Amino acid sequence: MSSAPGPGREPPRYLSKAEAEAIEKELLEDYRFGRQQLIEIWGHACAMAVTKDYEPTIFYPKRSPDPLYRDFTTQCEKMDIPFLSYLPTEVQLINDAYNAVVDAVLGAEAEAGEGREPCAAILATLKHVRIPIVSLDVPSGWDVEAGSSGGISPDVLVSLSAPKQCARRFLGRQHFVAGRFLPYDVQKKFELNPPEYPGTECVVALRAPRQ
Amino acid sequence: MSSAPGPGREPPRYLSKAEAEAIEKELLEDYRFGRQQLIEIWGHACAMAVTKDYEPTIFYPKRSPDPLYRDFTTQCEKMDIPFLSYLPTEVQLINDAYNAVVDAVLGAEAEAGEGREPCAAILATLKHVRIPIVSLDVPSGWDVEAGSSGGISPDVLVSLSAPKQCARRFLGRQHFVAGRFLPYDVQKKFELNPPEYPGTECVVALRAPRQ
Repeated sequence: MSSAPGPGREPPRYLSKAEAEAIEKELLEDYRFGRQQLIEIWGHACAMAVTKDYEPTIFYPKRSPDPLYRDFTTQCEKMDIPFLSYLPTEVQLINDAYNAVVDAVLGAEAEAGEGREPCAAILATLKHVRIPIVSLDVPSGWDVEAGSSGGISPDVLVSLSAPKQCARRFLGRQHFVAGRFLPYDVQKKFELNPPEYPGTECVVALRAPRQ
Repeated sequence: MSSAPGPGREPPRYLSKAEAEAIEKELLEDYRFGRQQLIEIWGHACAMAVTKDYEPTIFYPKRSPDPLYRDFTTQCEKMDIPFLSYLPTEVQLINDAYNAVVDAVLGAEAEAGEGREPCAAILATLKHVRIPIVSLDVPSGWDVEAGSSGGISPDVLVSLSAPKQCARRFLGRQHFVAGRFLPYDVQKKFELNPPEYPGTECVVALRAPRQ
């Protein structure tokens, strides 16, 4: 599925917000991917990027009425994955209880996060945790294109499909891309210069961490 | 997600048809998995089991009007995966052109296959190919529980979720199980004795090939 050029290959292109939306629209409308299927693909890839075996706890501050998200929530609940009813404001409690924070507020909600409750308080807490933060696609509170101004500083970034322009501002230690499933024509049309995915990997770390 | 007992662990249990249906019903209704999500999970796991990198050609003899299958077909077509309009009856042509046959007629259709066209002619051809056959879940023409009587003899079997009873009749060289995603309570309720999935593997080969 991946294109193959050798050592001199171009770095992947970083997408504008409009391009990211155009790709998702094309996958859903033209390629007939389903939203549930994409979330399954991305979720699986993120789990691969985060760790080989982990026991998550979920903090889901604002439940969506969308049946799609309700169904994914049911899956987690029935699998006995614990949900936190609130995020401790005492940062030390978080540092002591967990090994990492996976910041997985996707899409538009992430953008609207800054300044709005309960997101503003959560972001204020996350800015001070000392355990690593793994952000999915667009770190919470960041602008898709401009990135962060005093927001959280993730240690690991997992770009879904392709990096968005905000990823240029990422200063953490590992930047993964989870875009192996993208059809070749989409890679070409949006000039993605996707990284090479070795073996059967669905995520790959970009070569030169931006730091 | 997998349970962990050590070297003395029980072999996985082989499901009856009713049990296999009960598990799928429970996943869909209680755990709120989606059909599209399950197919994505199974499809990914099958691709892992089949090979690290392969270029498939699809032969899809009887197209389903179900929008779900239409959407998956569109994905394949738009990714430029070639479709065969007919299966050569000359077995040598198949042996020469391909490295393996993935037999992926799922569920009820597979059972009804024997004796009905176009399936009967296809099965007659597949019985004589010399390249390996990889069957998904229930080999085409086999009964879910009783297995085969003079049907195809797959070299590789990939059981989805858990082995069905017909897998006891499997005489090929590798038997994979793709059930890592199964919730722990389902594993327990149906006494699955799932195999241990190392690292991040979504499929695992059962230890002692039945031959």
